[in-house]
Amino acid sequence: MIWFTEYWTENVGLTVKANEVKRIKSKFQEILVLDTPEFGKMLVLDGLVQTTEKDEFIYHEMLAHPAMVMHPNPEKVLVIGGGDGGTVREVLKHKSVKEVHLCEIDEEVIIVSEKYLPSISEKLRDEKVKIFIEDGNKFLEERKDYYDVIIMDSSDPVGASEVLFQKAFYQKVKQSLKHDGIMVAQTESPILQEKYFSGAYFEIRAVFRHVGVYLAYIPTYPSGMWSFTIASDFIDITDTSRNIDRVKGLKTKYFCDNIYVCLFSLPKFVQEIIKKS
Amino acid sequence: MIWFTEYWTENVGLTVKANEVKRIKSKFQEILVLDTPEFGKMLVLDGLVQTTEKDEFIYHEMLAHPAMVMHPNPEKVLVIGGGDGGTVREVLKHKSVKEVHLCEIDEEVIIVSEKYLPSISEKLRDEKVKIFIEDGNKFLEERKDYYDVIIMDSSDPVGASEVLFQKAFYQKVKQSLKHDGIMVAQTESPILQEKYFSGAYFEIRAVFRHVGVYLAYIPTYPSGMWSFTIASDFIDITDTSRNIDRVKGLKTKYFCDNIYVCLFSLPKFVQEIIKKS
Repeated sequence: MIWFTEYWTENVGLTVKANEVKRIKSKFQEILVLDTPEFGKMLVLDGLVQTTEKDEFIYHEMLAHPAMVMHPNPEKVLVIGGGDGGTVREVLKHKSVKEVHLCEIDEEVIIVSEKYLPSISEKLRDEKVKIFIEDGNKFLEERKDYYDVIIMDSSDPVGASEVLFQKAFYQKVKQSLKHDGIMVAQTESPILQEKYFSGAYFEIRAVFRHVGVYLAYIPTYPSGMWSFTIASDFIDITDTSRNIDRVKGLKTKYFCDNIYVCLFSLPKFVQEIIKKS
Repeated sequence: MIWFTEYWTENVGLTVKANEVKRIKSKFQEILVLDTPEFGKMLVLDGLVQTTEKDEFIYHEMLAHPAMVMHPNPEKVLVIGGGDGGTVREVLKHKSVKEVHLCEIDEEVIIVSEKYLPSISEKLRDEKVKIFIEDGNKFLEERKDYYDVIIMDSSDPVGASEVLFQKAFYQKVKQSLKHDGIMVAQTESPILQEKYFSGAYFEIRAVFRHVGVYLAYIPTYPSGMWSFTIASDFIDITDTSRNIDRVKGLKTKYFCDNIYVCLFSLPKFVQEIIKKS
């Protein structure tokens, strides 16, 4: 066993006992799979924990379900990033879904996840799923007015993912959505990455009429307090009584009706970061 | 600078860059004060992070305010543990308060906090505050039917604090409360310390008629997801519209009206731990 440490900032990190299972260098990044007694298998990209078997349900459920529930009838869904397959698995829990496109820039992430993280990637070969190994930014340019829901399951806003946190990108997302479409993105930790968090909110608000921020507890992400930003031009996504009857039928471990109703209940300091963004 | 690591379990820890400011061995424990670039001054007891200047407001606000707001007129308040003074400071924000008793077993914690953590301990010498250097367990036996609110601001349930997580102790708490009194305790992480969390819930429910569990994001505590258990024999503390007008006047950074309204909105897996407790 080794101790693997992800440095959340230069001054704090999470350290985890682990065996190294696989380490490869893809065209885009270093992909590392660890086997940890605390969190099970752990996927690490360029030194940053992406997902673990123990707590992945929190991130994937909270990224996918609010937008999926708020949309009146989500049939066509795009996931950008998310090569581990966890978000696709959650999207497919909604019966209205007819096709899920996964646009992942790095095929090696998919290959590694299918081999080492089967409980997360299990639905990637579902017949409703189509995988595109492409740059999300370019992919969107070719598909206008097409999707009901677009989910940004990106890694942190450095390197290949940096462009996914910029206004020009959110404008493309909007153009690829139908008029009543909804987008959602993971937008970092308000405590340890306030700059990225407030920057993403600012850019998304400049593009969409309705914008909301919500949080979830993710023990293996920086500070454990993780943010998501959801937006739509047509649907008032801040109304969390919308389609609530569809929540009860979902097989989930974190998301549920009272998490949905209280989705936008934020600590005061997070509200204040948003206000001044 | 050194790297200080708190091992949350034997398989995962939080590691923080730090300068050692003070290290003493009291009669009860090792008291360590670190100066950290990320979290400011940090108080560590027997290797476990108790509080930091950066995020202490979350723990102290969420421990104190829900019970203080739910009580119709809290005048007499007891804090057990909490020698750093943060909980006392929050309690004093409620204008109805006439006296706050702080029962701390280890005087050295108070001395160190007053010297190195002035922003946390600043109200310990307020004229409404009386400090008792005593064992909380014995202290309660001498005060029956006296307090409106009792707050258990204990360290983890090992060593000196173990007894504070047992049924016999909660029974003493109940006897020291007036008939409409409310108690609240910090009850560990549902993710990394499920056994202590569900154990505390089980014991408290055996003693009090109304019991509720709520969570807060605390980056420097194990998993970042921290639980609190609140209970009363007379007041239905699960009604979070109760006295909500008193929330707005509080000068806080985390607790606010929509956190209060959604206090008991729990992730499904936490609800399930509670159900089977």
